[in-house]
Amino acid sequence: MSDDVTKILLSESEMPTSWYNIVPDLPSPPPPVLHPGTMQPVGPDDLAPLFPMAIIEQEVTTERHVTIPPEVLEVYRLWRPSPLYRAHRLEKALGTPAKIYYKYEGVSPAGSHKPNTAVPQAYYNASAGIRRLTTETGAGQWGTALSFAAAQFGLECEIWQVRASYDQKPYRKLMIETFGGTIHPSPSELTAAGRAVLAADPDSPGSLGIAISEAVEVAAQHPDTNYALGSVLNHVLLHQTVIGEEALLQLAKVGAVPDVIVGCTGGGSNFAGLAFPFLREKLAGRMAPVIRAVEPASCPSLTKGVYAYDFGDTAGMTPLMKMHTLGHDFIPDPIHAGGLRYHGMAPLISHVYELGLIEAVAKSQRECFEAGVTFARTEGIIPAPEPTHALAACVEEALRCKETGEPKVILTALCGHGHLDLPAYGKFLSGEMTDHALSGEAVEAALTRLPAVPA
Amino acid sequence: MSDDVTKILLSESEMPTSWYNIVPDLPSPPPPVLHPGTMQPVGPDDLAPLFPMAIIEQEVTTERHVTIPPEVLEVYRLWRPSPLYRAHRLEKALGTPAKIYYKYEGVSPAGSHKPNTAVPQAYYNASAGIRRLTTETGAGQWGTALSFAAAQFGLECEIWQVRASYDQKPYRKLMIETFGGTIHPSPSELTAAGRAVLAADPDSPGSLGIAISEAVEVAAQHPDTNYALGSVLNHVLLHQTVIGEEALLQLAKVGAVPDVIVGCTGGGSNFAGLAFPFLREKLAGRMAPVIRAVEPASCPSLTKGVYAYDFGDTAGMTPLMKMHTLGHDFIPDPIHAGGLRYHGMAPLISHVYELGLIEAVAKSQRECFEAGVTFARTEGIIPAPEPTHALAACVEEALRCKETGEPKVILTALCGHGHLDLPAYGKFLSGEMTDHALSGEAVEAALTRLPAVPA
Repeated sequence: MSDDVTKILLSESEMPTSWYNIVPDLPSPPPPVLHPGTMQPVGPDDLAPLFPMAIIEQEVTTERHVTIPPEVLEVYRLWRPSPLYRAHRLEKALGTPAKIYYKYEGVSPAGSHKPNTAVPQAYYNASAGIRRLTTETGAGQWGTALSFAAAQFGLECEIWQVRASYDQKPYRKLMIETFGGTIHPSPSELTAAGRAVLAADPDSPGSLGIAISEAVEVAAQHPDTNYALGSVLNHVLLHQTVIGEEALLQLAKVGAVPDVIVGCTGGGSNFAGLAFPFLREKLAGRMAPVIRAVEPASCPSLTKGVYAYDFGDTAGMTPLMKMHTLGHDFIPDPIHAGGLRYHGMAPLISHVYELGLIEAVAKSQRECFEAGVTFARTEGIIPAPEPTHALAACVEEALRCKETGEPKVILTALCGHGHLDLPAYGKFLSGEMTDHALSGEAVEAALTRLPAVPA
Repeated sequence: MSDDVTKILLSESEMPTSWYNIVPDLPSPPPPVLHPGTMQPVGPDDLAPLFPMAIIEQEVTTERHVTIPPEVLEVYRLWRPSPLYRAHRLEKALGTPAKIYYKYEGVSPAGSHKPNTAVPQAYYNASAGIRRLTTETGAGQWGTALSFAAAQFGLECEIWQVRASYDQKPYRKLMIETFGGTIHPSPSELTAAGRAVLAADPDSPGSLGIAISEAVEVAAQHPDTNYALGSVLNHVLLHQTVIGEEALLQLAKVGAVPDVIVGCTGGGSNFAGLAFPFLREKLAGRMAPVIRAVEPASCPSLTKGVYAYDFGDTAGMTPLMKMHTLGHDFIPDPIHAGGLRYHGMAPLISHVYELGLIEAVAKSQRECFEAGVTFARTEGIIPAPEPTHALAACVEEALRCKETGEPKVILTALCGHGHLDLPAYGKFLSGEMTDHALSGEAVEAALTRLPAVPA
């Protein structure tokens, strides 16, 4: 394939048939997940009320490759393999000698990378005889993906969306309903957790922590109902590695080897999905890319958090995971990249960061939207607010190359389009968007409330 | 390529390098466009204040193939060739032996087929030394496409959007601005035409006719400014033929020959873009597809209009075109498929319809949205309201095949996604959507006001 092509496409027969698990390739295994009562590693029985056994096995597997079931591949084919683009027009606008490639996941039904894991999660649950899935959603990408995936396997899907987002983003609710899901604002009267919050504050705007509690409560109470999570956990990162596996094949087709890989990180699944297959190649000495996570300046778990055991949810109901955290009850400022507003980082990403295998930077909101607008006007795709963080880092690296004259190969993940996020662009273009300074005091206070874990 | 593949892709090197002009292949040429003052055929000088000479030449060319400039191909490559999908999951849900293929134009920057003509129009204007383009837009797809296209060639783009749509669809305005365009609600204080309307009615909701008047007025007054139109005219249909040329190549790759081609028709550019290259093959005896235009029951120019000379705009300022029309001042009911609410049909489509080369059907709104929801839940793409008309006809044909057992090959154009049209889906899902009965009296009255043209 010529190296001046714009879209590097794979045929369906070239689609990866297994997901990649990085754990066996790491110099040391990640620390275990602990039960908050016993402080002992959690076992399959602890997770069985919420997840099917196939998912639990994937969460702890030490196999390097996990076969993708044919039923999942059949749904993946609706949008996978996703295109890898060479950003010729962005490069020209920046005047950089760098070669910029972006892997575009916005072609999926939900408009982001989330269906890569929603589809197998729905499949494994349907195979286990489950009839309904519950989940929480913030901005709504994950809820959309699970709603679509559930419909493919005849499952019902019930979603609790943080009320503030539910009221602000009516298009997300409509997309979820168009795919067949049921959506409730959270807190709701449908659960004990929701009723307790409403009793104390009938006008509660909700939080991701409350929405998780409601979804988990319903799943735990009904044997035919399970819960699904859209990021952070090992099996979610595993499913997302189709992104990086495809990108490896695509770059090889044009003879390009990445010097720098940048991806945005919230819970971490998009970043890990792109980066882990390349990290495998780096660990094996077959390439040597710098791999850089880009997080929002207002929620910088890797660059400003501590590496400690903490809860996955605000309310402190989940098992304890060792991760970079700002404290489980730290509430990030309301930036438009809702998908990056998470207090912790995926344990597996935290572990590779501690091992020094990846680096991290934080970007402020307006710099990101500026990169997003430049990208839209040159490449024709309006990015979701989350990947504008990766694009800002991409532009920074490309301009550095302009100074030094280095023709570096930069690879990034454009994990979703911003069609339902246009009001954020409106705020940026009208000059109404503000940057959010991180409150060091708020982080310090939240870190004093980390759970005590025996050494 | 295997025939059970889901996405039939072309490489960039397979992208068509010329547009197809159907005129020389027709048994008779279409009737000329007339000057409303002299009733004589319009000449290049009549059009020169609004369009560059390259566009005027394309409007009247009798060449079979028109070369696509390299500068246009370079922008096309951002999303072209567009994918052709086999709708395996829709077929399965319908239980039909038919094979359904859809050509998807929603991958473009604007999310529809409109950039296929916006890009060359911007290119030819920039090449002619023009500095700014003006246009009108209703629902906003055309304004978005021209805004993006203008940015690719360093042109300014100024858009008058019907005020009712401007107020109802804030996301479209934001998308246009993100791509760099300037947008005004119409009627505006910026033009004599707008000021006159506002003087009579300060709360005027506007109309496409008024918006056209404003855009044309500004273009006519400034030598460095031209006007661009998004449908109806010959050169627009010409540019859209890349859709059908690609689909021909794609079907050939899987050895499929269409028995039935269905496309939605408003002004007609999407339908012609898909159908004309196949009509060429039909006229040459190389295939024999039924080619069916699908129009909204509330605006059925082909099935309920007359074939007569009429104005292209409501106010009666344009040249006279012979076309199927409901009368230039017929105002269709406010269905959600705003792109299909046009009183006339492209003269070239009207001509081939009169020649008996294509057929037409009309569909009501709820049947269309039902097909749209079925499509979204099976194929993972939420269609714009316009192509749900084609999908409804597609489903109808597929269910007919289910009865007869015929494994027909059905081809349709999915000309855009519905991400910015989700409120319409909300109305459908909540049962609030109504069908609109066509008022025969309103059409009869409008037809009494057709311009008098000497035989």
